[in-house]
Amino acid sequence: MAKARNILFIMFDQLRWDYLSCYGHPHLHTPNIDRLASMGVRFDRAYIQAPICGASRMSTYTGRYVNSHGAGWNNVPLRVGEPTLGDHLRKAGMSCWLVGKTHMAADVEGMERLGLKRGTTIGERVAECGFDVYERDDGMRPEGPDGFYDEGGAVAYNAYLRSRGYGGDNPWHDHANSAIDADGNVLSGWFLNNSNKPANIAEEDSETPYMTRRGMEFIERQGDAPWCMHLSLIKPHWPYIVPEPYASMFGPQDFLPVVRTQEEFDAAHPVFKAMMTGPVARTFCRDEVRNAVLPAYMGLIKQIDDQMGVLFDWLERTGRMQDTMIVLTSDHGDFLGDHWLGEKQFFHDTSTKVPLIIYDPSPEADATRGTVSDALVEQIDLAPTFLAVAGGAPVDHVLEGHSLLPILHGTATEMPREVAICEYDYSGTPLRARLGVSVEDARCFMAASKAWKLIHFEGGFRPMLFDLVNDPRELVDLGDSPEHADIIAMMYDHLHAWFRRCDQRITKSREDLEAMGGRIGRRGVTIGVYSEAEADPELVVRYVGRKARPWQDIAARKPIA
Amino acid sequence: MAKARNILFIMFDQLRWDYLSCYGHPHLHTPNIDRLASMGVRFDRAYIQAPICGASRMSTYTGRYVNSHGAGWNNVPLRVGEPTLGDHLRKAGMSCWLVGKTHMAADVEGMERLGLKRGTTIGERVAECGFDVYERDDGMRPEGPDGFYDEGGAVAYNAYLRSRGYGGDNPWHDHANSAIDADGNVLSGWFLNNSNKPANIAEEDSETPYMTRRGMEFIERQGDAPWCMHLSLIKPHWPYIVPEPYASMFGPQDFLPVVRTQEEFDAAHPVFKAMMTGPVARTFCRDEVRNAVLPAYMGLIKQIDDQMGVLFDWLERTGRMQDTMIVLTSDHGDFLGDHWLGEKQFFHDTSTKVPLIIYDPSPEADATRGTVSDALVEQIDLAPTFLAVAGGAPVDHVLEGHSLLPILHGTATEMPREVAICEYDYSGTPLRARLGVSVEDARCFMAASKAWKLIHFEGGFRPMLFDLVNDPRELVDLGDSPEHADIIAMMYDHLHAWFRRCDQRITKSREDLEAMGGRIGRRGVTIGVYSEAEADPELVVRYVGRKARPWQDIAARKPIA
Repeated sequence: MAKARNILFIMFDQLRWDYLSCYGHPHLHTPNIDRLASMGVRFDRAYIQAPICGASRMSTYTGRYVNSHGAGWNNVPLRVGEPTLGDHLRKAGMSCWLVGKTHMAADVEGMERLGLKRGTTIGERVAECGFDVYERDDGMRPEGPDGFYDEGGAVAYNAYLRSRGYGGDNPWHDHANSAIDADGNVLSGWFLNNSNKPANIAEEDSETPYMTRRGMEFIERQGDAPWCMHLSLIKPHWPYIVPEPYASMFGPQDFLPVVRTQEEFDAAHPVFKAMMTGPVARTFCRDEVRNAVLPAYMGLIKQIDDQMGVLFDWLERTGRMQDTMIVLTSDHGDFLGDHWLGEKQFFHDTSTKVPLIIYDPSPEADATRGTVSDALVEQIDLAPTFLAVAGGAPVDHVLEGHSLLPILHGTATEMPREVAICEYDYSGTPLRARLGVSVEDARCFMAASKAWKLIHFEGGFRPMLFDLVNDPRELVDLGDSPEHADIIAMMYDHLHAWFRRCDQRITKSREDLEAMGGRIGRRGVTIGVYSEAEADPELVVRYVGRKARPWQDIAARKPIA
Repeated sequence: MAKARNILFIMFDQLRWDYLSCYGHPHLHTPNIDRLASMGVRFDRAYIQAPICGASRMSTYTGRYVNSHGAGWNNVPLRVGEPTLGDHLRKAGMSCWLVGKTHMAADVEGMERLGLKRGTTIGERVAECGFDVYERDDGMRPEGPDGFYDEGGAVAYNAYLRSRGYGGDNPWHDHANSAIDADGNVLSGWFLNNSNKPANIAEEDSETPYMTRRGMEFIERQGDAPWCMHLSLIKPHWPYIVPEPYASMFGPQDFLPVVRTQEEFDAAHPVFKAMMTGPVARTFCRDEVRNAVLPAYMGLIKQIDDQMGVLFDWLERTGRMQDTMIVLTSDHGDFLGDHWLGEKQFFHDTSTKVPLIIYDPSPEADATRGTVSDALVEQIDLAPTFLAVAGGAPVDHVLEGHSLLPILHGTATEMPREVAICEYDYSGTPLRARLGVSVEDARCFMAASKAWKLIHFEGGFRPMLFDLVNDPRELVDLGDSPEHADIIAMMYDHLHAWFRRCDQRITKSREDLEAMGGRIGRRGVTIGVYSEAEADPELVVRYVGRKARPWQDIAARKPIA
């Protein structure tokens, strides 16, 4: 084994932490991902910073909380000038490439203000969240009466499908994400009652194998220079549909039981209740929906695991397993009817806790191989970890997480934090109008210690509280329990300490600031010195012994024009 | 009178609110500034956002709190990409020019990352805090054993002085800011025992008249296009020294009595005590220092007032008084021995409250001419005020203050806030090391309502509290008073609500976010729809009635290369 020289940063989208066998799923066997876990450290308490793709990813790719970078929802552009993982890594001599999804929206107005143009190296990096792009594919090409959601969606993948003979104007939809009936009618994967049908595509042409191959292609083309490559795969994100053989692998006997209680529904906090009673949540609470969706969701994960097997075997064969750190994670989970919700936009561990496995080939990591860490990890810890692997000096005044290397190398077991933070900004969603909340107040915040999880809502709502030790399934909200007032106050103290952190002083490092103290005195700024006699002679050397003529004598004085 | 078309934004440096006769000084008569107050509104409770030049100004020039823009001390660069007053005004069709001081430090590293270069229009604006520069002069050219504090300091002014016949390598120091003895020895204005001697310069060549003339020159050169010009004068900031006739105008009989008590000193909070016992504070508590400095400080203000008279008369003559809003303010005050402090770096009104006078020529403002407003105003209210004058749409998602036009036009008497905020970051000062506080914790925050002022310190210190109604001179710190625990808790609630504000989501406006709700559905993102039968036919128009061939039949399928 050698020191990690490269970083393969694999992210899945909407992959629940508990749908892998190494995390305890009893029926969904994922031996290849489990193999990675046996070679590295599996983190059991890794939180994302927002339960929605775009905001979660912007935190991961900047190493900063949503509250710090501001891109709080999908398609809220990341402000121009916000430093990224790519900026830090390149400065340390490591390239940073994208193969797959980011959900980045460029700050077009900010770029215009600064004269930055797409098509230039810098303009592209700013527009692509700091990555150099090998292939950008956000994994969707939806189209409605107002047109495409994303003009750039799945363009290269659709071209690939066409090169493979798939027809129609959008084979991403018609083949990769739909089934077909005997009469040739497309059964769209957008409709959940089609989820349990096989996608009308050869398995090898579907999205996960395609993008995994693109990742291997990228690696194959690298020379000796160290690289970080973000292999970012869309599945098991919806549309929930998978080709054979995965479409037929799983049935209700393989499901994890749904996690919800009537009491939970009846007593729900008003914001939680509004989510539960929204159209998406109501759909996912129907048994027929779970029965149709779960086999596809599980099949997609099984396919992912097989593709990881292909990838890891190839890395072994090519020698890259010896010099490449491999990180495998997800951007958030999926409620799938648990807690009376669908999708991911709330704070239960179901959505906010993600699988995180890190394999470090370096000998320093030998002591921890195959271990499980219950350290309180945040996804923003990845950027400082990668920077440390690249050999860059820490940039603690910009990056808000902490390197995981001490845990990977067995020199620490805990992270230097009391709580993990996750934020949800619902200002751009219909939920805001349903609740009658202002754009400014449509925000909520989770602070989770190992023992407690507090959820704070702006807009005058009471908080929610879960006892993670005695109620790990988070079914009993103690947010209005008088007996828990002290716990709530303690968790608010943590949350407010976090709000008060120094997150925007990004132009001066700790070392810069430490060195500033008194420096101005050596450059002649002489404050509070009564007389030459009281002055430090060295500091005022330029102010003593000088001569001048009286202004009245100055010959050249003339009327001001 | 016509509507304001232009904005003349005058700022003095280190001018205390109570050293003008319109604000109540009994001996320092400032009839010209008082005249402006009689033509406009005089704000009696205007707070700056940081008690230090650079940070205060960065807030004023961005319209955002220090906690939002991050430039917390002098020479902490304003991060690249932070939008400025100039950006907003130019978008609204008004130019934005600088004549004088900003204390801006360019984010050289950030500019390099984005490929922005000085010498280009955009690069200059980014480096100059959004201003187009007519003349930048931060008003100082200090020099010590390590060289100049600022290579660009007073360069044009020194050239002017040389053109007027003043000699030496630094006439800014030797003439404008020093006296002379009978033997031609320069008596440096950096030494406070020289403050009561006349500066060795013709009054007309000293800094305030010079820069005032530069401002008039700028205005003279403007055509019909609307402009905002920031006339930003260094005085009465130190070096405290003024030429005749001002040098001899004031003596101890004219001083405001010093505001401090032994009890205040003895009971002082540890951070306050560390400030009181620092070298600068100790100097300013000596009577001989006040006796030397105050005549110069007052003389500088008297000179300022006379120059404002020249300027206002000229504006009348040229017709600009009819179409130009005039704003006169300061970036912070000066303790001058009050509260056992020198300089300005703490939170008493002495430093954090500033004079603010706004004259609006428009007829809508007739009803308020000569009135005094006790609304709780922050300096960050100026940017939205100016944007409103320029006719631009509000940018509430970026600017954190509120337009003062409703008060100027008599349609409101209060501002929409409960507390004014001021922040002080002492991480780059010797005080931090003296207190043994980390760079991260070397920050403190003021929240002031009309009744109470809370000061919160990071680093584990107790808060301070002043009762502004019963103790307007802020001599009794109630921060450890058990009877005031409820008040302290209430003020902390205000402070924490402020910390939780949404300050970084600057790439989407409220209107954008309101319009986002549900928009993705019209672009084909179809979530939580069980079947075609349950779908809104309009939204899924692109997913129904489609045809495809079974993948097994696709003739062009071939092995993957």
